[in-house]
Amino acid sequence: MRRSPNLQRLTTNYIFIEVKKRVENYLKNHPHERRLIHFGVGDTTHPFPDIVAEGLSEASLGMATEVGYKGYGPNFGLESLRETVSKVLYDGKFSLDEISISDGIKPDLARFALLTGGGQKVAIQDPSYPVYLESSFIIGNQVTLLPATKENGFFPDWCLLKGPHLLFICHPNNPTGYTAIRAQLQEVVNHARKEGMLILFDTAYRSFITDPNIPRSIFEIEGAKECAIEWGSFSKSAGFSGLRLGWCVVPKELKYSTGESILEDWRRVLATTFTGPSYLSQMAALQALSKEGQADYQKIIQGYLENGKLLKNALSSKGVSCYGGEHLPFVWADFSPHLSWDTFDTFLTKHQLIVTPGSGFGSSGEGFIRFSALGKRPDLLEAISRLLL
Amino acid sequence: MRRSPNLQRLTTNYIFIEVKKRVENYLKNHPHERRLIHFGVGDTTHPFPDIVAEGLSEASLGMATEVGYKGYGPNFGLESLRETVSKVLYDGKFSLDEISISDGIKPDLARFALLTGGGQKVAIQDPSYPVYLESSFIIGNQVTLLPATKENGFFPDWCLLKGPHLLFICHPNNPTGYTAIRAQLQEVVNHARKEGMLILFDTAYRSFITDPNIPRSIFEIEGAKECAIEWGSFSKSAGFSGLRLGWCVVPKELKYSTGESILEDWRRVLATTFTGPSYLSQMAALQALSKEGQADYQKIIQGYLENGKLLKNALSSKGVSCYGGEHLPFVWADFSPHLSWDTFDTFLTKHQLIVTPGSGFGSSGEGFIRFSALGKRPDLLEAISRLLL
Repeated sequence: MRRSPNLQRLTTNYIFIEVKKRVENYLKNHPHERRLIHFGVGDTTHPFPDIVAEGLSEASLGMATEVGYKGYGPNFGLESLRETVSKVLYDGKFSLDEISISDGIKPDLARFALLTGGGQKVAIQDPSYPVYLESSFIIGNQVTLLPATKENGFFPDWCLLKGPHLLFICHPNNPTGYTAIRAQLQEVVNHARKEGMLILFDTAYRSFITDPNIPRSIFEIEGAKECAIEWGSFSKSAGFSGLRLGWCVVPKELKYSTGESILEDWRRVLATTFTGPSYLSQMAALQALSKEGQADYQKIIQGYLENGKLLKNALSSKGVSCYGGEHLPFVWADFSPHLSWDTFDTFLTKHQLIVTPGSGFGSSGEGFIRFSALGKRPDLLEAISRLLL
Repeated sequence: MRRSPNLQRLTTNYIFIEVKKRVENYLKNHPHERRLIHFGVGDTTHPFPDIVAEGLSEASLGMATEVGYKGYGPNFGLESLRETVSKVLYDGKFSLDEISISDGIKPDLARFALLTGGGQKVAIQDPSYPVYLESSFIIGNQVTLLPATKENGFFPDWCLLKGPHLLFICHPNNPTGYTAIRAQLQEVVNHARKEGMLILFDTAYRSFITDPNIPRSIFEIEGAKECAIEWGSFSKSAGFSGLRLGWCVVPKELKYSTGESILEDWRRVLATTFTGPSYLSQMAALQALSKEGQADYQKIIQGYLENGKLLKNALSSKGVSCYGGEHLPFVWADFSPHLSWDTFDTFLTKHQLIVTPGSGFGSSGEGFIRFSALGKRPDLLEAISRLLL
């Protein structure tokens, strides 16, 4: 077999794998140092609400019974879950066919890459979640990077682009913490419709929005059904990073430039590349989206947001400019002119803290560090004391 | 966005979706007919052994505790599970790095398609699991179909192919039931090495092999580490079709024609397109691969194989030529000169039995019907009585 030229564009290691390597190397050389505290990968740490764990346990024990055993489920996810997602998260404005349940946004973006088939123009803000860039490279799409910097308030001018493009927009933005108001998203939607663009809207952090003026979905914007696909995730909102569950909304109104239905192709691609997510993860999600589940998670999310505030205040008190930490469980901190990986090494060797280098999210992230607020409170307090001492 | 030309090659509906459509249509027009019995999709029906369900339940309840909660796991699967797969299924002859745990063979083939990048030559036997063909089409690989018919004993002559190809080999074969002996696979491996081919070996049904002379893995064949990737699945062997779990073995010896490591690219592709399978499914797999779990599953598999025997005998007594049903939980039955979909309709309307039309697996499957032996025994007996009356 010959090597795909697309893979040769993936030159560096996936950021979190490089972080892991450096940490392992450090541990090998400093086995007796005080314990490391993770501020790195945005991994949730708060245990499940009882209602979710008990629902899971019940479904698990059911698998050993004639009536409770479940084999293959629908490719697109359980109907009951699709219905609940539509009702609880979208006021019922999407039909079951327009919603698919996946094992997370990352694998769904790979399936979407297969749908694009390569050779499409893609626009991605820099810095951003590395998977946008890499899943575009893997299929051979052409990428334009739009810097999102202090200077433009971390929101690039998407309207400078002309002609059909796929626009990856993460909102609230990982890693910068940027949130747009309605008018800004309306402008992007209008532009996308005019130019025949498709907005790929990633709402992984929607549950962290506390301001009712900030949209939680692109579909709160008029005309978005004609130009947007939206992804969501249970990873951060419900602590499902280990259970693997997300969703995707592809409105039936979406068309290719030649008029065919994109939804029909999406369902065809899913049928060929996916067999649905785990039944148990879906049963857990039904509990998470119940009234009681939602109330429990509200408290957990509140705790993470408090973490963000504590962290931001601590860093600010040391004179570091910080962004995010509101509507997002990350703080985006400016350590320039120091390079991100240098600051990463300093934190590791001086404070025994693992952070995420901003340059791992794109060259415009150089100088920044992303701190995760998804850790446990005692760890966070210990980390802050290391920073401040 | 313009439509990918690759998608236009997926002309028909995925077979099981077409089956579902016809069944729904039939039910709408015949609401008062006796209940339908499924012989269709190869879905397991036997409940989990207690040890597996209890392990799952325990891990589920743990998710609500500080010590038991798990977030992101390794992209390639839990180390403990990779170690167990290597030890229990491969006599420990692969390192942890060479094994990746996935959410099933179908989604893993989509990720492998991304690794190939398109433009590669692929050879697939006809009939076969439709995903080989469709995942090749989706990425734009060039497909040669090799008929597997009664005339060639359902094993095409792979050695007629010259030059680098990707060879999809399912063994034991779905749908024909064909199993190769060592000498035959040795010949294919020798040929593949000579021609620079890569064998993609699908062992979804390996647990159903009862004859020690039939290899359960391509890696029982000398030289296979230089020319083969192998996939396995917990769906049929452990009833995990709803939990979604499989594995892939990519030997470190595998190289592209230009010398780079295929394993390194595979791990890079996984890092970009996958976040690991569900933690709970992996915990269940650890129980399934335990000594007690394996003993329990041995009995379940024995029951399915008896189903196959009963079914084969019943069909044979009606004068139908049957294949498979041994080493595979399917019976491949020849109803030619009737067309497969006609026979499908006859079974549906006359016997209220849902079967799988052989032509759905490729044009050389025309005239055949695939019967699943994975149903419940009482259903199977009822179905047989409908056939024989």
